[in-house]
Amino acid sequence: MEFSYDERTEELRGQLLAFMDELVYPAEPVLAAQLADPAREPWSIPPVVAELQAAARARGLWNLFLPGEHGAGLTNQQYAPLAEITGRSILLAPAALNCAAPDTGNMEVLAQFGDEAQRKQWLEPLLAGEIRSAFAMTEPEVASSDATNITTRIARDGDEYVVNGRKWYITGAMNPECRIFIVMGKTDPTAATHRQQSMILVPRDTPGVTVKRGMKVFGYEDADHGGHAEILFENVRVPAANLIGEEGSGFAIAQARLGPGRIHHCMRAIGIAERALELMCRRVSERVAFGKPLAEQGVVQDWIAEARVRIEQARLLVLKTAWLMDTVGNRGAHTEIQAIKIAVPATVEWILDKAVQAHGAAGVSQDTPLAQLWAGNRTLRLADGPDEVHKRSLARRELKRYQQKEV
Amino acid sequence: MEFSYDERTEELRGQLLAFMDELVYPAEPVLAAQLADPAREPWSIPPVVAELQAAARARGLWNLFLPGEHGAGLTNQQYAPLAEITGRSILLAPAALNCAAPDTGNMEVLAQFGDEAQRKQWLEPLLAGEIRSAFAMTEPEVASSDATNITTRIARDGDEYVVNGRKWYITGAMNPECRIFIVMGKTDPTAATHRQQSMILVPRDTPGVTVKRGMKVFGYEDADHGGHAEILFENVRVPAANLIGEEGSGFAIAQARLGPGRIHHCMRAIGIAERALELMCRRVSERVAFGKPLAEQGVVQDWIAEARVRIEQARLLVLKTAWLMDTVGNRGAHTEIQAIKIAVPATVEWILDKAVQAHGAAGVSQDTPLAQLWAGNRTLRLADGPDEVHKRSLARRELKRYQQKEV
Amino acid sequence: MEFSYDERTEELRGQLLAFMDELVYPAEPVLAAQLADPAREPWSIPPVVAELQAAARARGLWNLFLPGEHGAGLTNQQYAPLAEITGRSILLAPAALNCAAPDTGNMEVLAQFGDEAQRKQWLEPLLAGEIRSAFAMTEPEVASSDATNITTRIARDGDEYVVNGRKWYITGAMNPECRIFIVMGKTDPTAATHRQQSMILVPRDTPGVTVKRGMKVFGYEDADHGGHAEILFENVRVPAANLIGEEGSGFAIAQARLGPGRIHHCMRAIGIAERALELMCRRVSERVAFGKPLAEQGVVQDWIAEARVRIEQARLLVLKTAWLMDTVGNRGAHTEIQAIKIAVPATVEWILDKAVQAHGAAGVSQDTPLAQLWAGNRTLRLADGPDEVHKRSLARRELKRYQQKEV
Amino acid sequence: MEFSYDERTEELRGQLLAFMDELVYPAEPVLAAQLADPAREPWSIPPVVAELQAAARARGLWNLFLPGEHGAGLTNQQYAPLAEITGRSILLAPAALNCAAPDTGNMEVLAQFGDEAQRKQWLEPLLAGEIRSAFAMTEPEVASSDATNITTRIARDGDEYVVNGRKWYITGAMNPECRIFIVMGKTDPTAATHRQQSMILVPRDTPGVTVKRGMKVFGYEDADHGGHAEILFENVRVPAANLIGEEGSGFAIAQARLGPGRIHHCMRAIGIAERALELMCRRVSERVAFGKPLAEQGVVQDWIAEARVRIEQARLLVLKTAWLMDTVGNRGAHTEIQAIKIAVPATVEWILDKAVQAHGAAGVSQDTPLAQLWAGNRTLRLADGPDEVHKRSLARRELKRYQQKEV
Repeated sequence: MEFSYDERTEELRGQLLAFMDELVYPAEPVLAAQLADPAREPWSIPPVVAELQAAARARGLWNLFLPGEHGAGLTNQQYAPLAEITGRSILLAPAALNCAAPDTGNMEVLAQFGDEAQRKQWLEPLLAGEIRSAFAMTEPEVASSDATNITTRIARDGDEYVVNGRKWYITGAMNPECRIFIVMGKTDPTAATHRQQSMILVPRDTPGVTVKRGMKVFGYEDADHGGHAEILFENVRVPAANLIGEEGSGFAIAQARLGPGRIHHCMRAIGIAERALELMCRRVSERVAFGKPLAEQGVVQDWIAEARVRIEQARLLVLKTAWLMDTVGNRGAHTEIQAIKIAVPATVEWILDKAVQAHGAAGVSQDTPLAQLWAGNRTLRLADGPDEVHKRSLARRELKRYQQKEV
Repeated sequence: MEFSYDERTEELRGQLLAFMDELVYPAEPVLAAQLADPAREPWSIPPVVAELQAAARARGLWNLFLPGEHGAGLTNQQYAPLAEITGRSILLAPAALNCAAPDTGNMEVLAQFGDEAQRKQWLEPLLAGEIRSAFAMTEPEVASSDATNITTRIARDGDEYVVNGRKWYITGAMNPECRIFIVMGKTDPTAATHRQQSMILVPRDTPGVTVKRGMKVFGYEDADHGGHAEILFENVRVPAANLIGEEGSGFAIAQARLGPGRIHHCMRAIGIAERALELMCRRVSERVAFGKPLAEQGVVQDWIAEARVRIEQARLLVLKTAWLMDTVGNRGAHTEIQAIKIAVPATVEWILDKAVQAHGAAGVSQDTPLAQLWAGNRTLRLADGPDEVHKRSLARRELKRYQQKEV
Repeated sequence: MEFSYDERTEELRGQLLAFMDELVYPAEPVLAAQLADPAREPWSIPPVVAELQAAARARGLWNLFLPGEHGAGLTNQQYAPLAEITGRSILLAPAALNCAAPDTGNMEVLAQFGDEAQRKQWLEPLLAGEIRSAFAMTEPEVASSDATNITTRIARDGDEYVVNGRKWYITGAMNPECRIFIVMGKTDPTAATHRQQSMILVPRDTPGVTVKRGMKVFGYEDADHGGHAEILFENVRVPAANLIGEEGSGFAIAQARLGPGRIHHCMRAIGIAERALELMCRRVSERVAFGKPLAEQGVVQDWIAEARVRIEQARLLVLKTAWLMDTVGNRGAHTEIQAIKIAVPATVEWILDKAVQAHGAAGVSQDTPLAQLWAGNRTLRLADGPDEVHKRSLARRELKRYQQKEV
Repeated sequence: MEFSYDERTEELRGQLLAFMDELVYPAEPVLAAQLADPAREPWSIPPVVAELQAAARARGLWNLFLPGEHGAGLTNQQYAPLAEITGRSILLAPAALNCAAPDTGNMEVLAQFGDEAQRKQWLEPLLAGEIRSAFAMTEPEVASSDATNITTRIARDGDEYVVNGRKWYITGAMNPECRIFIVMGKTDPTAATHRQQSMILVPRDTPGVTVKRGMKVFGYEDADHGGHAEILFENVRVPAANLIGEEGSGFAIAQARLGPGRIHHCMRAIGIAERALELMCRRVSERVAFGKPLAEQGVVQDWIAEARVRIEQARLLVLKTAWLMDTVGNRGAHTEIQAIKIAVPATVEWILDKAVQAHGAAGVSQDTPLAQLWAGNRTLRLADGPDEVHKRSLARRELKRYQQKEV
């Protein structure tokens, strides 16, 4: 066993920490000001993001998430501590490094399952940060974290596919620079359960696509990263070549996409927790009540200790999961991926709640990032399948493991 | 002991329930539409509220919160179950009945401590629902839930007082119809700790008053009830006659205001919890996953049972507190008022969290009221003094009680 | 609404509090010494209990639990605050007043369902405190909190019934003075689900009855009140006249017995919580660490405040349940009886845990009552049906209530 | 980073797992029977333990805990997974391997701080498993987890030291084979705070030593491993050469002893949690209620998933702590040692509680190990300093870390 980071990771951590200190943290108030500017085009990404992207790319801090030839070629173990650092400034740093969801997952899908034409047309500009993308899976009418419930129809008609359906909470899609949607739907509702689904590329400007409204998250529009759109697909026709992989491969591709997606969320969430703990420590060191700093109150100290103890445990489970993905593959790390999906958002929520409480009214306001971080993190307990579904699945595997050993 | 409501209460409950069914619930989508109307004057109260107010007044459902000659003359016990019902549609019903915070507390202050001229000028139009008011106590720079920390200065200068200070989270003050602010400040920073503070009436349009911005609550502006303003008072001059009571009485008036304020919040919060539980029951009865309604999942049943058990306990403590306030006075009910301030928001938060979870993405969205209710309720854990301050105080009293019995 | 106790209750409370102060609390160390006496006959009840019983009976504090002609004739509302007081010295006070489980429930069964001969032979000496009884329902092999699962057989054979089965955790039955067992079994396994069971009186000394061993509760034998026996019934023959009520009435009698049994447990548990809080307050006032009494530590204050807030809520729900049982009957109070069964043991467990923690090693030792109280209370979360079963049932009723209102 | 065990560890794990399967698990009912034998000499260790010790020693599974020349020479990293395995049969396996507390800590003290004569006289027979030892630190009268509070006096008188004091919860000391006590006391109460204490070797049979009684833990005497004694030291005279190290070194030795002691407890506790989870899985797979195995109930699945997720996190933190102790020393691992002391017992308690609940009455009985495991684990939340003390200390270090970075 060995708990230290390797040389390559330490080197990149050093560069990234410097980038954060020099450029990202100072850009946070700039982002806020640009978002608040009444003259801003609705849903456009504030210009400070592009500036940071240029700087990051120049420093080689670019596409770190992507293994293999198209990206930085890091392992999950190597990327994990870097993703954590970007989580400390979640509205800016992941986007600055071209490592923000859902583009990361979409690029992975294109790199792994796209054909050459698809990669040429969509992966390249995504890798270059020239356009953004969305992943259109969730539907309002069904429990769509179970992909087998999806009702959107992708029907073959000659050389084209015709897409009909309603999606919502399509992150990033309100941003006009989000040019391409990967749409999940059913090509054959009569096939075997996990062979009914396919994924298809639908350019934003295709006739029949209506980006209807931005869905909110506890009052937030998340306009800084393109919001969360409700989208109607009404007789949307795209060339048959837009299908990713073959008909019926949608479920498998979705599964392949989920593992890395989940661990990336968890890595960044650890960074959010560290930021929240730091803000809490600062606040309670400065704020005086009843004649002494809040930091000297026993209950506050209890929060800080619990926060530290919980973060350490959660981080280690994320890192071990990354190591497993690298050594035995995403399938072999299935239990651990599920475990961090369950554990990390709950841990981070608890810490954010305490950080909010330590800040009083400022904690729920727009003057600290805490409330928005809380809201974003809260959704992780229900996005990509609610905690309850994952617990059920993990428990069944645990029980089966026990029962098989018995025999 | 007797746990049933008296005849007058049952009669009013019947009328109020009918009013809710006939007018309030149907007005909820109207309110949403009016709030979303891009042509709306910012921060103005949507017209549906005034319509409901007219209807409520016509039915005698008006100023129910106010004991004594100026109001409906109900006891706390009688008002509690009615306030709970209004909590079921928190954005509309309290305002419709002229029973919404902070006007309720302000009317109480004016009724109890205002002189005849003050009552004539401000209490009468408030009782008539013609204007709205705000209570300017909280300051960003200090732990102002302890009123002794307040830094705003109210300095006598001839026949006038000059007010200087910065306040925030002044609920209702973004609404242009909010005509009067009750401002808490220090008239004599050298007096005994609890005799330094005074309250003074500052009309909105007084020179030197700047309503600077709306403070948010987890992304919500709460524009439906006038938001939460940050307000600058810079050399604001008002006649000396605007002082409420005498110099140095501010702390005592604030204390008198808090008891009823807290119990009203708690009463309504019980109604919020009932609404959330009802929404949860509806959702899980309708939503199917893994081949059966969510209502048949054990974990969901556990939530529902816990919610019911917790609501029943919390409501009883609120009702007993109301009874104590009626029988031994607010001072005698001090421990219980503090107990409900601690218990109720935490209970309601737990239930709202589960209701959100049961709704999936819809739960955090603008399509159900749950996320906004959660955010509003979350602030109760820190408004009027964070939980931790109340627990500390309650524990000390418990310890003293024990130690005195010992001797 | 009215939250004060009536005159009769207040009078009895005064008498009982005096009895506790004068005789019960001073007897606690006497009980401990008598239990520790190596010369004691195993499982016999220490003599101090009989002394207290004589005193209680002389003062009219006797059989307070029993409504109707055979007992003190109190309502549930009146008995509840008295039972709470006895809970403060749970090992002595209930027994002293002849108000200890399981005799209370057994006397209720005999009073309500026994025939004259059965009442003459068994109820009279029980009411007089001359003998003790046990209720033999739980079986090790099945989930017997659901009475329909019971496997013990009660077979008619001429003028006799023949009983075969194995029972455990039969409270009180290790005590040789426990003369009579009410045994639950199946007289007709082919009847309708709830008509298969019957209850029958089996004297301890009947051939075929083997009291096998004392079952422990977290290491405690609970020898002070007769332990918890495992009992074998092997071809045990009793006269047919020993059947209580008619064949097939066992399930209904068990249901009738459960309501009062549960509320009595909950009432006493509130008293346990008050005692624990008092012990915690004493300890933290006296114990010094880091230069000041523990009472000044913020975390300890948090515990004390939470304990007070939770006790108040739990007590009110118990009292309301008692009032409902008095006014609408046990059936009408079904939800509330279930609610207190869920809520009270969990609340009391939390408080006991904190009281233990505040006492350090003494808290888990035999030198304070806390650890034993904890263990006894812990079993309430699984006795008479585990929490999970009650929550499931309560939730289904809540859902049905919602669904029916909908239609 | 690398999360797999090294070759030496895997080899020993294989041997130890075989030893558990072949000898330890089968010996569990033997131990229970021997403990229950009425003819047993009180507090003697049942003979099955010595048999297992012989077998373990023959297999080379002996003194694995002890680094350096005197023991097996394993690192903390290597020992951790082995200690976890022994935790699965906590009453037998640690003793069988001569790796049970408090002997482990005492052997470490003697190996590290004892002089040659002391090692000869006491360490050798301890390493050979011929005698047992106790560590007499805790005192009933003071908060003695803070060693500076200790009141026991060790006074120099010519060539002897005279020991006076009262100790309790001295684990193992009821066992007559426990021949030697390491006693912590003050040699110079006027010295600097951390230089007042010394440790001294007091043979059990020294005049003035009275082993007064066995302290209980939630009803358990823990007779299987020598109980927890209250011991009086009244003018106990021992040769001056019995002092360990020099006068005033007691605090430092205690600190050195604590780190490994805590991590060993935590390692074994992880094994306890795994055993509990396994028992829970078995029970719920077999037990049927409401027509299906408990394993199919959603709430039960939730417990199992949570248990797995929490165990994984806790284990990783223990392993990382072991790695830190190996690489940067116990001092450098101070925060992590404290973190596992806080996290692990709480995690294991939660899992044991659920395992108990899943077993119903059997869970609190003597027929499963769960209740006793729960009680033993519960004490870890207050032994060696209650959680609250450790959290306070950890939080202060976190705050200091933050404040220093700020400057």
